[in-house]
Amino acid sequence: MKYRFALTIFFAALLGFSSVSMAAEKVYRWKLAETWGPNFPIFGDATKNMAKYAKEMSGGRLLIQVDSANLHKSAFGIFDFVRTGQYEMGHSASYYWKGKDINTMFFTTLPFGMIANEQYAWFYYGGGMELMKEVYDKYGVMSFPGGNTGNQMGGWFRKEINTVADLQGLKMRIPGFAGEVLAELGASPTNIPPGELYTSLERNTIDALEWVGPSLDLRMGFHKIAPYYYTGWHEPGTELQFMVNEKKFKDLPEDLQAILVNAMRLAAYEMYTHSQHESIKNLAEIKKNFPNVQIKTFPKEVMTAIRAANDKLLKQFADADPMTVKILKSLREYEADARAWTNISDKAYLDSF
Amino acid sequence: MKYRFALTIFFAALLGFSSVSMAAEKVYRWKLAETWGPNFPIFGDATKNMAKYAKEMSGGRLLIQVDSANLHKSAFGIFDFVRTGQYEMGHSASYYWKGKDINTMFFTTLPFGMIANEQYAWFYYGGGMELMKEVYDKYGVMSFPGGNTGNQMGGWFRKEINTVADLQGLKMRIPGFAGEVLAELGASPTNIPPGELYTSLERNTIDALEWVGPSLDLRMGFHKIAPYYYTGWHEPGTELQFMVNEKKFKDLPEDLQAILVNAMRLAAYEMYTHSQHESIKNLAEIKKNFPNVQIKTFPKEVMTAIRAANDKLLKQFADADPMTVKILKSLREYEADARAWTNISDKAYLDSF
Repeated sequence: MKYRFALTIFFAALLGFSSVSMAAEKVYRWKLAETWGPNFPIFGDATKNMAKYAKEMSGGRLLIQVDSANLHKSAFGIFDFVRTGQYEMGHSASYYWKGKDINTMFFTTLPFGMIANEQYAWFYYGGGMELMKEVYDKYGVMSFPGGNTGNQMGGWFRKEINTVADLQGLKMRIPGFAGEVLAELGASPTNIPPGELYTSLERNTIDALEWVGPSLDLRMGFHKIAPYYYTGWHEPGTELQFMVNEKKFKDLPEDLQAILVNAMRLAAYEMYTHSQHESIKNLAEIKKNFPNVQIKTFPKEVMTAIRAANDKLLKQFADADPMTVKILKSLREYEADARAWTNISDKAYLDSF
Repeated sequence: MKYRFALTIFFAALLGFSSVSMAAEKVYRWKLAETWGPNFPIFGDATKNMAKYAKEMSGGRLLIQVDSANLHKSAFGIFDFVRTGQYEMGHSASYYWKGKDINTMFFTTLPFGMIANEQYAWFYYGGGMELMKEVYDKYGVMSFPGGNTGNQMGGWFRKEINTVADLQGLKMRIPGFAGEVLAELGASPTNIPPGELYTSLERNTIDALEWVGPSLDLRMGFHKIAPYYYTGWHEPGTELQFMVNEKKFKDLPEDLQAILVNAMRLAAYEMYTHSQHESIKNLAEIKKNFPNVQIKTFPKEVMTAIRAANDKLLKQFADADPMTVKILKSLREYEADARAWTNISDKAYLDSF
């Protein structure tokens, strides 16, 4: 690269050109489409941080423009944008693509799955990245961890859940696989656009909803109309996703490839830390200013029933696809070993207080 | 930079030079001194990773040579190496400098302090970085998180600890502040070089020792001679440290400054993930191949006594120095809020199994 560049200048000089504009190294102008709206907290900061790291580390040679959902008008079209090359990059969540390929579902989080630091160990040292590559390679898409929300809360409920029978007919906004699990127990899961959640809960269109956790829930106002805030089971370590079009990536010079990969990896870790801080700060505010909020844990009987429904559904997926069997085996074996360590380290320590 | 470079080539061309060697941009060759010996696992990988990230992202313009303790012969001289500029960078642990400045002690870990993800939130969003800068600025040294070991185990014991009386006269290798805490309860803490630990324990020169956790303990062989492996209290989230000489840092062009800062930050997060994986894997091996090892937790009575001794000692430090008061206030307030969140998120989730 340097050699060709120097030769260009050399011949330019021989030809009598004295302009220095030719001396500028090539600038790569990329675009990233994100699922989130403009100024979406935490998730949106992850993409902005990534673009900032790339710009600063490349001395302005890799410039990534972030398009939020208001611009590209397709919050759930990110995978296709990147696959077709319409966008060089995307930021979303792998489990949104389960309708296209069921095996994308396992790289975000699973009910009763790993917590964030266990899952990072699985991704980077336990074979997770290799399995994700195997799933995404056929689409010409490179997939990377994109930031963790931390352990998500089980949701805001207007009534207490004391027995499995209390789930019967419960109208709850809880999308995706977790919703299917609750449906097994007689609940009526629905998905509702974020902008209508508050009103739906207030007007009893739904009885309960889950969103994320204190980091993002406080600003939604749910605590004003649903006093029971349950601890979580369904998304113990939700990892978002960066996607890169493989062909476009190969067009980058090696140093910019390294800058991009490390900028994504750092922005992902950073989002987890940011999520933790926002949950810490917002939970403190809830406790201080909204003492009516009661933090509850589902009774053991309820948790046992939910776990049984979860296992049953997962088994149906696994029976249908050998790649699913392979991914679930890796996840479960790693989780068992990881949990043994978590239990005698962080958990034993936390129990001692 | 680009402008001058192009002009150089231009005039070189006019003068008839065709050599392209002049086209090479300036290469910064730095040296880093680390506390660890050559090929020290995990900790040594963190420095190698950091140097690799810097080299790849800079296209070879920032090359960092890592000198291990066998070369520089001063495992605990790293702070002075960096302060004086003898080395541009160092990798060590902040609490090693407490003899020079007591306030450096609080940026690694504290008994009964925060776990890794709580502490990262404090460093990057809760004011920790600003306090660390205030402590290190006067030495012309920049200090950064350098990688987390995860929650450290309480140590390997030849006899069970059932009461506070069992700590009386206990000869234990446990250096630093935690050793002082146990001394308050009648134990005899000592420090012993790593190479002599096994023999000292085998020959009853000591009754117990703490090292790190499964990630680094298994290869030391302690499980063969001390069957009781206690869970931890004294180093819940040990964060190592990168140091950079401030003047040398300011000599770097802006893009290389960004590359260096992000390479350190990424290598630190990465080391935490690596530590987790090694503990996960090695604990599984201990359980499988050494079933005689008994994992124990100190009885509540013992923990209560240790915590009281810890609080008493910390109060003595705080009384002596207003900066210590300020740092401890920040740590304690953040820890209280962070723990409230951890308790209803990861802990509540882990408790449900």
